[in-house]
Amino acid sequence: MACRGGPAHDAPLMQPPLPRRRFLQASAVALGTAAAWREAHGAPPPGAAEHDVPADPGKALGVPLPDEGYGLRSQFETVVRQRYGKTSTPYSSWTFTPLQESVGIITPSGLHFERSHAGTAIIDPAKHFLFVHGMVREPRKYSMKDLKRFPSVSRLLFIECSGNTLTEWAKPGLPTVQGTHGLTSTSEWTGVPLATILREAGVEARAKWILAEGADGAAMTRSIPLDKAMKDCLLAYGQNGEAIRPEQGYPLRLVVPGFEGNMNIKWLRRLQVADAPFMTREETSKYTDLLPDGKARQFTFEMEAKSVITSPSGGMRLEGRGFHEISGLAWSGRGAIRRVEVSVDGGRLWQPAALEEPVLALCHTRFRLPWRWDGGEAILQSRCVDETGYVQPTIDQLVAVRGLNGPTGSVYHLNGVQSWKVASDGAVTNVHA
Amino acid sequence: MACRGGPAHDAPLMQPPLPRRRFLQASAVALGTAAAWREAHGAPPPGAAEHDVPADPGKALGVPLPDEGYGLRSQFETVVRQRYGKTSTPYSSWTFTPLQESVGIITPSGLHFERSHAGTAIIDPAKHFLFVHGMVREPRKYSMKDLKRFPSVSRLLFIECSGNTLTEWAKPGLPTVQGTHGLTSTSEWTGVPLATILREAGVEARAKWILAEGADGAAMTRSIPLDKAMKDCLLAYGQNGEAIRPEQGYPLRLVVPGFEGNMNIKWLRRLQVADAPFMTREETSKYTDLLPDGKARQFTFEMEAKSVITSPSGGMRLEGRGFHEISGLAWSGRGAIRRVEVSVDGGRLWQPAALEEPVLALCHTRFRLPWRWDGGEAILQSRCVDETGYVQPTIDQLVAVRGLNGPTGSVYHLNGVQSWKVASDGAVTNVHA
Repeated sequence: MACRGGPAHDAPLMQPPLPRRRFLQASAVALGTAAAWREAHGAPPPGAAEHDVPADPGKALGVPLPDEGYGLRSQFETVVRQRYGKTSTPYSSWTFTPLQESVGIITPSGLHFERSHAGTAIIDPAKHFLFVHGMVREPRKYSMKDLKRFPSVSRLLFIECSGNTLTEWAKPGLPTVQGTHGLTSTSEWTGVPLATILREAGVEARAKWILAEGADGAAMTRSIPLDKAMKDCLLAYGQNGEAIRPEQGYPLRLVVPGFEGNMNIKWLRRLQVADAPFMTREETSKYTDLLPDGKARQFTFEMEAKSVITSPSGGMRLEGRGFHEISGLAWSGRGAIRRVEVSVDGGRLWQPAALEEPVLALCHTRFRLPWRWDGGEAILQSRCVDETGYVQPTIDQLVAVRGLNGPTGSVYHLNGVQSWKVASDGAVTNVHA
Repeated sequence: MACRGGPAHDAPLMQPPLPRRRFLQASAVALGTAAAWREAHGAPPPGAAEHDVPADPGKALGVPLPDEGYGLRSQFETVVRQRYGKTSTPYSSWTFTPLQESVGIITPSGLHFERSHAGTAIIDPAKHFLFVHGMVREPRKYSMKDLKRFPSVSRLLFIECSGNTLTEWAKPGLPTVQGTHGLTSTSEWTGVPLATILREAGVEARAKWILAEGADGAAMTRSIPLDKAMKDCLLAYGQNGEAIRPEQGYPLRLVVPGFEGNMNIKWLRRLQVADAPFMTREETSKYTDLLPDGKARQFTFEMEAKSVITSPSGGMRLEGRGFHEISGLAWSGRGAIRRVEVSVDGGRLWQPAALEEPVLALCHTRFRLPWRWDGGEAILQSRCVDETGYVQPTIDQLVAVRGLNGPTGSVYHLNGVQSWKVASDGAVTNVHA
């Protein structure tokens, strides 16, 4: 497979490209003996220390199983979602998913990022209703029980805040991938296709838009094109196999696959059908993109293709030369990821990463590349291509189009290539390269 | 698509079979107006009550976002895993996943079934090691940090206890699907391929088996064929995007895809390579299958293809005639599910259910079928076919081969067809049919 920027056999820091299924075999051969490891890596292999196998494990009883319960994580696990940056109030605020600890593609619901505009609404599902009105033949009101009677679907989907990575426009901002990219998460969402409910109500022929409104104190409202609503939106009540979490909109969230996070209205209470967008506060004063000439782009719905290396990433330190797996996530609001390439030299040479199955449209995709670190400086980058052929741009390319005249450089929709610098002592930092 | 047991047009209680993508469209047409709904269903549609759309939602602030934290589920969600049946001690015991509330294919980690033989071992990962020895060129000892340096993979996989459904051999046992089938769960597991570590240690040519041993008080041990170990076993440290939960083996579990749950050794501490199985307590006194002639089948590793309707299921009550979605799970320890058929008349007529993507090997698959209940008695059943062509048997067919001479009829590996009876008052109960 050809690499951009130069022939693959010139890549000094990487193993030769291998089809995914062959890699483990090849690496196993390479790691076959401690001596071979030492020769290849310049350091002893993991597990090569002298030792005896204990003859007998402990016989201590553990914690008895409860008659019933809901399990929690280990007392030794301490990673949390965290707020970065100041917000004027803890009600309109956010917390970030710790992507540096992520494995696979699913985000545990307890670590799914938060972005709310009036705190987390606490709603009794028995008292919650969804209203459907406006340009419809027959207005409707649904209880949660009503909604659960309809045919349902489940889909693994990412949701990304349009403000994800906003600290990185002008210069490197936050030190870790949790800060730079932690406003994206993937869950298995379950609910009723919005199209089913709209057909129930009978949408008028001249209708073109829908308003979705949340039951939170901010009454979050966004306009959604009718064609998107009919295509794949979900009235979601399930997340990762159980009820949606409170901070994700319990008991009902509008999931708008691939569109910016704030359109995925939480605590959904009302859908109004109309022939024009509603020009709500959240789509006029906010969630537009200021251009160099002072004009604003409006209705930039789709989250463009984006990828980031989650390990190694900022704040980590490589412990010794030799083998390290480069691993990260890629996603696109326009469909499935087709290719991810990784560079370890700041973008001169690129090598294809393996994409882990299942590779799903509008969902995080995990990519991996084996790497042998020689102890020198390295700049790690990833860039992805989605099924439309769109190539993730550099930050410079984005700035050339979008400018830097927002409060943080620009604000929303930064999907440029992220660079992590590995210093010769193994320390990894956030850089622009 | 042809249905077994009779022509599809004779099926009185079901809608005509439809390809999955066409179903929502068709059902939306069918549900297009309240009048049409009433005509088709004999009852008012959900949401048809008189109402006004409130002009303004509440403006109350919600709960402020914390600076950092790990989220929990809603205070209104109360479903839990539960113990059924007596165990002589709460240390060697189990709790069941509430499948009746399941949506999608992922089991939330807090509701993943438990089966432990000496309680839940509490292990500090900084003090945990994996030993590899026996017929290897070079014995090894790995810390958790060592293991996390290796190339990793993530896979969505079910784990099912071989004792799942053991109450159902001779007659209907437990009243709900949580009791009858709640010892199976699906997670996204992440870890190092066992093959990588075995190649590191250098397995001798005459080796054929591996012993896996847990660090729990029971020192759970099972023999695993080397070819399976090299094929797809995982040294798993991740579950659903974070660290494995304590009751699932934190910090390290051997995941043996498709094989009976007890072989997926939790709190894994030791792997011993040998040329014969070890005939451990757990594979001689237990986890064998007693046959009618008194002999026991040993090493019945694979969990055969199985399916169950999770909704409607035992203990539920259908609220009114008309549309109900029949939904359930299917899985096979031998590969991917190819087909699920549903009967609403106790197995006379069968109709293909839609399989929800992604359909993955060795993983739960969600199936769905639209159904219009006419208010009469119905017997709901599902049966699946896996990629090997194996057809899920009836319980009677299983009993004919396996007999009923265990303490609960027989004990392990009951994968027969489950029947739920819908009475004319809508009550759903567990029956043999």
